[in-house]
Amino acid sequence: DALIKYSVNIGKGTRGPNNTITDVEGVRVGHYTLSEDHIQTGITAILPHGDNLFKEKLTAATYVMNGFGKSIGLMQIDELGTIETPILMTNTLSVGRVATGLVRYMLEQNDDIGVSAGSVNPVVCECNDGYINAIRELPIKEEDVFKAIENCAIDFEQGAVGAGTGMMTYGLKGGIGSSSRLVEFGDKTYTVGVLVLSNFGNLSTLQIEGHKIGDLIKYEIEHEEKGSMIAVLATDLPLSERQLKRTLKRIPAGMARTGAHFGNGSGDVFFGFSTARRINYRETDDIISIQVINENLIDRVFNAAIKATEEAILNSMFYAQTTVGREGRCVKSITEYDELLRAEFT
Amino acid sequence: DALIKYSVNIGKGTRGPNNTITDVEGVRVGHYTLSEDHIQTGITAILPHGDNLFKEKLTAATYVMNGFGKSIGLMQIDELGTIETPILMTNTLSVGRVATGLVRYMLEQNDDIGVSAGSVNPVVCECNDGYINAIRELPIKEEDVFKAIENCAIDFEQGAVGAGTGMMTYGLKGGIGSSSRLVEFGDKTYTVGVLVLSNFGNLSTLQIEGHKIGDLIKYEIEHEEKGSMIAVLATDLPLSERQLKRTLKRIPAGMARTGAHFGNGSGDVFFGFSTARRINYRETDDIISIQVINENLIDRVFNAAIKATEEAILNSMFYAQTTVGREGRCVKSITEYDELLRAEFT
Amino acid sequence: DALIKYSVNIGKGTRGPNNTITDVEGVRVGHYTLSEDHIQTGITAILPHGDNLFKEKLTAATYVMNGFGKSIGLMQIDELGTIETPILMTNTLSVGRVATGLVRYMLEQNDDIGVSAGSVNPVVCECNDGYINAIRELPIKEEDVFKAIENCAIDFEQGAVGAGTGMMTYGLKGGIGSSSRLVEFGDKTYTVGVLVLSNFGNLSTLQIEGHKIGDLIKYEIEHEEKGSMIAVLATDLPLSERQLKRTLKRIPAGMARTGAHFGNGSGDVFFGFSTARRINYRETDDIISIQVINENLIDRVFNAAIKATEEAILNSMFYAQTTVGREGRCVKSITEYDELLRAEFT
Amino acid sequence: DALIKYSVNIGKGTRGPNNTITDVEGVRVGHYTLSEDHIQTGITAILPHGDNLFKEKLTAATYVMNGFGKSIGLMQIDELGTIETPILMTNTLSVGRVATGLVRYMLEQNDDIGVSAGSVNPVVCECNDGYINAIRELPIKEEDVFKAIENCAIDFEQGAVGAGTGMMTYGLKGGIGSSSRLVEFGDKTYTVGVLVLSNFGNLSTLQIEGHKIGDLIKYEIEHEEKGSMIAVLATDLPLSERQLKRTLKRIPAGMARTGAHFGNGSGDVFFGFSTARRINYRETDDIISIQVINENLIDRVFNAAIKATEEAILNSMFYAQTTVGREGRCVKSITEYDELLRAEFT
Repeated sequence: DALIKYSVNIGKGTRGPNNTITDVEGVRVGHYTLSEDHIQTGITAILPHGDNLFKEKLTAATYVMNGFGKSIGLMQIDELGTIETPILMTNTLSVGRVATGLVRYMLEQNDDIGVSAGSVNPVVCECNDGYINAIRELPIKEEDVFKAIENCAIDFEQGAVGAGTGMMTYGLKGGIGSSSRLVEFGDKTYTVGVLVLSNFGNLSTLQIEGHKIGDLIKYEIEHEEKGSMIAVLATDLPLSERQLKRTLKRIPAGMARTGAHFGNGSGDVFFGFSTARRINYRETDDIISIQVINENLIDRVFNAAIKATEEAILNSMFYAQTTVGREGRCVKSITEYDELLRAEFT
Repeated sequence: DALIKYSVNIGKGTRGPNNTITDVEGVRVGHYTLSEDHIQTGITAILPHGDNLFKEKLTAATYVMNGFGKSIGLMQIDELGTIETPILMTNTLSVGRVATGLVRYMLEQNDDIGVSAGSVNPVVCECNDGYINAIRELPIKEEDVFKAIENCAIDFEQGAVGAGTGMMTYGLKGGIGSSSRLVEFGDKTYTVGVLVLSNFGNLSTLQIEGHKIGDLIKYEIEHEEKGSMIAVLATDLPLSERQLKRTLKRIPAGMARTGAHFGNGSGDVFFGFSTARRINYRETDDIISIQVINENLIDRVFNAAIKATEEAILNSMFYAQTTVGREGRCVKSITEYDELLRAEFT
Repeated sequence: DALIKYSVNIGKGTRGPNNTITDVEGVRVGHYTLSEDHIQTGITAILPHGDNLFKEKLTAATYVMNGFGKSIGLMQIDELGTIETPILMTNTLSVGRVATGLVRYMLEQNDDIGVSAGSVNPVVCECNDGYINAIRELPIKEEDVFKAIENCAIDFEQGAVGAGTGMMTYGLKGGIGSSSRLVEFGDKTYTVGVLVLSNFGNLSTLQIEGHKIGDLIKYEIEHEEKGSMIAVLATDLPLSERQLKRTLKRIPAGMARTGAHFGNGSGDVFFGFSTARRINYRETDDIISIQVINENLIDRVFNAAIKATEEAILNSMFYAQTTVGREGRCVKSITEYDELLRAEFT
Repeated sequence: DALIKYSVNIGKGTRGPNNTITDVEGVRVGHYTLSEDHIQTGITAILPHGDNLFKEKLTAATYVMNGFGKSIGLMQIDELGTIETPILMTNTLSVGRVATGLVRYMLEQNDDIGVSAGSVNPVVCECNDGYINAIRELPIKEEDVFKAIENCAIDFEQGAVGAGTGMMTYGLKGGIGSSSRLVEFGDKTYTVGVLVLSNFGNLSTLQIEGHKIGDLIKYEIEHEEKGSMIAVLATDLPLSERQLKRTLKRIPAGMARTGAHFGNGSGDVFFGFSTARRINYRETDDIISIQVINENLIDRVFNAAIKATEEAILNSMFYAQTTVGREGRCVKSITEYDELLRAEFT
């Protein structure tokens, strides 16, 4: 683990075995990466569970910190408190293609959609990788969605991969990052996992556990803060949609701890779901029994979310390699400052 | 029942035995009325259940159709999804006094508030009865809250009573109105009850079951639409806070069916709660089992809410007597047009 | 005008010259229609002004009455209070394709998008025409967007056309409808125009100006209410984004006056924009002078919006012809009940 | 200035001459303090301008980070985008009394309220000082509001004074703190001022400019995080209500930089207003010209708000003296750790 290499310890909570969102049982992540010359982009898919999500929906919520973005699918999650498709991430201009690919995937799996079962709500979120990716060329195809979903697994790469291929964090290379924390409720251990698509920040404000690393690193890209961050939070705790939303409102606290300033041109959009209960789309009972957590104990979840977010952002940077893209623009990995980091943290 | 007298049948649903909000088991309503010359105002209290509400909270929600109003307590209900005090109604400028009276009532009942149990969130809502009430004199005292609460019972008056004493609906006398509908879920019968504090509308737009009664009644008060309506919805169905909020969003449809235009100067604010589950304020379990309704069946609740709202508004008018107040201003009861109504409806 | 034929007069306001949304200067509407056997669908485009909308944005707002829908683009409108693309309507599963087509149209018009000017926020809304349209076949192509936009004009068809081709209203044929009202501010006359994509309601609840037409028409489709309505409101009045949102919150009152019950499975989503001010995307002034209306007079706008909505819904029905689609399913036009309507209204 | 004493420099922005919210021209602040044995509480009043605020309203907005609180007046600010009374702060259980006092103050100043000018929307916000204040005794009287307003001036005390008398921040003494930043727009200099009522946090998470001061200070109060923070942001920049709300959403970033974790039992509620335009309550023009800032430049405001918030919180601590209250409980001032702070920062 990259951070452990530098002895950086984010918070005091216990990490899950993989320290990723897939520590939440059933969650899998897959990438489709396009990295060739001026094309530096891709798709990342998150499968909330391994079965048919349209037929067995999950409790879900969203929170928009800054709505300067183009993610889709939020409105219905807010209204119904449920998610019924995988969550896909891609670049800003490819949201439509990825949504259509996701609709086609759902139609293949469910022959009653559009016939007897209403329609389906694809969830697709995005950041703008236009600094090193030729985003205008719309290189993503509808079919590519199937590849990202097929690649879903418990083990997955972080950094400059999938939707993160062309993203930039604090002026350095960022992209996909993930982390998890364990929390105790009753006599059971549950997991809170976070995956981010990280594409925000100016180098000058970067700090790691209070260390002003941004000031130490000389290199800086001539770049106005126009970034965004997408976060997906998963948990096997039985959080209600309201409890999930409250938890998502703490994600910015994790961002702020790495130096985020939440600039104008930033689409900061967060999704959360709980795997604890499956909601049958043709439920036959009139009244349903469910579980929620005792609200008096929700701070445990808040803290786990803040810590996992902070570490996921840093992981998106420490796992990302230096990348050259459009017009020969080079975005450096923070790991190129290995000596400086070792000196600071050890 | 006043409407039945004219054979007006609002919708096709089944009414509860009292056709009021107290058909929901445990709910009680009480008034404190000040009606003397230029003072025409009061307090109406709704007790969601008969025990200690601070210690056994209920699931609750709010919806603001038009926020040109001064009701308090919404923010915490929205955040936590619970209500922990009775709901009180009064005139606009007395919200502070009634809130303090309610706080004092809660302190008397709970010696741990402010010591070991945090604080308490009083819920007080209001309409402006300033047309016939000398609202500037602040005739309501903190102590009056105790009287309204003491008067709470299953049987309660409607019309120009309690907080409704000085209110005006469609240019005629309005105030407190209530109605209920029964709904079937599983093999059980549940109740949806609505109570309104009705203080809105111009006579010209009043319609009853499609009949343009407003056009028929010659009399009209020289009065710009500046009204408001408060509605409280109670049910013994296990609705989640999100399901309650969705239901409250249908309240305006019931208003529109009587001719509402939702003018600028109107504070239209709605509260809902479910008596199905009591939330222990010192809950010891980490994970709690609860019930919610099958979302696919929620239209039953929506329809009940719309019908009960429409009828509650009309009841607030048909029960209200002609009232004379400040500066000798007279607001007539719709029942003064008995002949006209009989001719139209029979 | 279909309604005038039956002497139905919706409210007392003054209509604009075309009685459509294009009475607002600069607004144009165009359709692309696919109507062949089991394919009954299309696209409708609304151009807010005739120039480059990305470079000269307009003030805009949204309001979600019921979020059980898949429209996209709302989040950024809410955050920034502006719209930067035409508004497109289509069927539910084609939102992604139409969004991509719209992105391609914007890229063609603006060679700085994705290079130096950030990204673009496509606005696409939808209803589900799956009852008579083979929606699973995804017959809409990205390129079709260009055709709908090219067809934009001041004169446009209403009823079963464009995105309205396969839609159903109160169990009868519906689709695209529009209406407008004139309002006076200062010594000038302004226009409020509404266009709806109408796809909701059960026949039994349909009422026209208080007449319960739904009860009179014997025919009824075996169909659970799962409908939706999209409304777009345009005005040349200088409304702020907040004033626009308040106005959009009155759209459901117009729907309720035709009998709407706002069922669970309904995506009722509204957009509004003002053409009064153009917002330069590379504005050089630090402080900008704008105009807004005097809030004390906003009831004029509310009333115009309610009336235009009510009439637009009825126009969507009176202009629509009987349509046969998927599996030979036939949805009748209300005009087939000509005799009944003449008897009722004259 | 307490922070300058320790050479702590919060951000790089330029402070206003007083480094308080009253650097915004026209804004004044006054306290009423009750500090005697077990009574440690009070009122703080903020006057947005020096004239009749009901007759000349200001553009305003709110943002609720965590709604576990009892502040009132938000709903109408959100609906209308204006504020019409001073903003008062007090303890949680005294909100009703202070609201009534504020209503009485407004009635004295405006003899048309409740007669010809509708009602008035008092804005009162709160934190819970029950740890050292006997909050159940309701020591605040309605009349005390007049004293706090009379004390309003450009120069005002910070720390354990007014509403801040009994508040606690990061387990140490907190209360009222303020700070300001200057921003350039066009060729003019504007001011962003923040005043906080600070009552949140655990000592262990306190950090000052990255220094983990909380870990260094041995003393800690046996206290679960149940705190809250109120912030009021004032500016003479012509921000629209939407621009104000976006700015308020950055307040938590300032809190997070001092170590905030946004626990469950926290009411974090923020208000903002602009003094740039006065809105005549009997405006006679139908269309009004106003100014707003160029949205592309709003980051300047965001940064100023974050920095001023961070510094205001620290000022609330550095100005507060050690205070003993209810049951002899003692809350220490951070300045008691003078040596430790000097060692860390110099």
